Amino acid sequence: MRAVRLEIEYDGAGFRGWAAQPGMRTVQAELEAALATVLREPVTLTVAGRTDAGVHAWGQVASFETAAEVPVDLVRRLNGLGPADISVLRAGPAPEGFDARRDARSRTYCYRVLNRREPSPFEAGRALWWPHRIDLGAMRECAATLLGAHDFTAFTPTQSDHVRFERDVSWAEWVQSAYRPSIPGGEGEPGSAQPLGAVGSDESGEVLCFWVRADAFMHNMVRILVGTMLEVGGARRSAGEFAALLGGAPRERAGETVAAHGLYLASVAY
Amino acid sequence: MRAVRLEIEYDGAGFRGWAAQPGMRTVQAELEAALATVLREPVTLTVAGRTDAGVHAWGQVASFETAAEVPVDLVRRLNGLGPADISVLRAGPAPEGFDARRDARSRTYCYRVLNRREPSPFEAGRALWWPHRIDLGAMRECAATLLGAHDFTAFTPTQSDHVRFERDVSWAEWVQSAYRPSIPGGEGEPGSAQPLGAVGSDESGEVLCFWVRADAFMHNMVRILVGTMLEVGGARRSAGEFAALLGGAPRERAGETVAAHGLYLASVAY
Repeated sequence: MRAVRLEIEYDGAGFRGWAAQPGMRTVQAELEAALATVLREPVTLTVAGRTDAGVHAWGQVASFETAAEVPVDLVRRLNGLGPADISVLRAGPAPEGFDARRDARSRTYCYRVLNRREPSPFEAGRALWWPHRIDLGAMRECAATLLGAHDFTAFTPTQSDHVRFERDVSWAEWVQSAYRPSIPGGEGEPGSAQPLGAVGSDESGEVLCFWVRADAFMHNMVRILVGTMLEVGGARRSAGEFAALLGGAPRERAGETVAAHGLYLASVAY
Repeated sequence: MRAVRLEIEYDGAGFRGWAAQPGMRTVQAELEAALATVLREPVTLTVAGRTDAGVHAWGQVASFETAAEVPVDLVRRLNGLGPADISVLRAGPAPEGFDARRDARSRTYCYRVLNRREPSPFEAGRALWWPHRIDLGAMRECAATLLGAHDFTAFTPTQSDHVRFERDVSWAEWVQSAYRPSIPGGEGEPGSAQPLGAVGSDESGEVLCFWVRADAFMHNMVRILVGTMLEVGGARRSAGEFAALLGGAPRERAGETVAAHGLYLASVAY
């Protein structure tokens, strides 16, 4: 049996999430169907991040084992067969016994918030539209408190079946960016939008991205973290109150679960 | 009569272009219907760029005159009434007699090309997918030759009703950028995509944007320019042959009209 590793991008809008479910359109089911056609035998995918309905991926990683011949142009053939809302970015041999879920050292997620009064047709379904004032400094204080190992009981549904609620966050940051390219050479024309910046550079722009990397994530964890930080950004609770939730506080003390369509699985490290 | 100026963003996928046509869904018809509801009287919009079916806008400008009271929260009310694929960014009083079309000094367009072997679900309908090698240097030579006044007869359909084929290009440039944010602090993880850059900075990334600014554009002009430059980028003709088309060559000597869905009206200057 050969282990094969896939890197995949998908727009989550049209899927009931990653995991195959009878009668539902899911990323796993679509990919397994395309793989079965190419390889002429059924395969079962293991995945780094089992994303929920509506959640997107820029860098999902999945693996499978097969005794079949794997064609060298597997990526091209899968993209030729598959729907337009999934793209296979890479496929290649993996070490014997490789398992995309078990072997992942960390996952990096990004949650995108469009923070301006007007909605954008280009961000509909791609970012949470939040037309309220945000204190970015306060939300950055929250992000800084996430670093290290904490008990995230407050940030996953009470009925979830996790047995261990500690997760180890190695990176958490709010980055301000633009939702579309700024116009090079455009000197503040009347017809241009607000001055826009680039990720991590001059810090202008209407999109706030919450980047977070951890060994693993619990169900809804990023979405509840963002929902709670947005309350801090709106002065409805303090950064200190946010930090106090990280020691195993009950779910009801944290904020709302924000919409799935702002969330992206950005990358996985092995 | 008061003149009012609107700045508008739209995703062109769902429209038969800007201009109202009986029985067709167009940006003009949708906006005029929303305006009539808010103002309780019909208005007729004049527009800076009459975009074709499928063409997007980041900074379209339109104007109208009305004797009606214009509410201060016009933007919010239009966005509340309008469809999700149009967003009104700004509305405000304009000088007496202002006309968004006649008074525009220049228009800036951007044509986006996703230049990588794999398609992207996030760029479907937003960029031309071009999975072929491109010589960016050669396309930049072409862009440089566009500066100044030229006869663009080769770059508009033969049957178009223009009476003057000279246009004055004040800026033309190919800019390489990323189709999604790069991962700050992501040190080339196995799970991350190719290294990506930002507009105008380190020049990595899979999206090539052709930016062009001129006093005015003819029908299909940007799309034929891009189609012809892509032939130069693919070594099917030379930059010199491209430049030779700018003196009034016939339409059949230029290249193909590339797809509408890569084109964006970026901004208008007055």
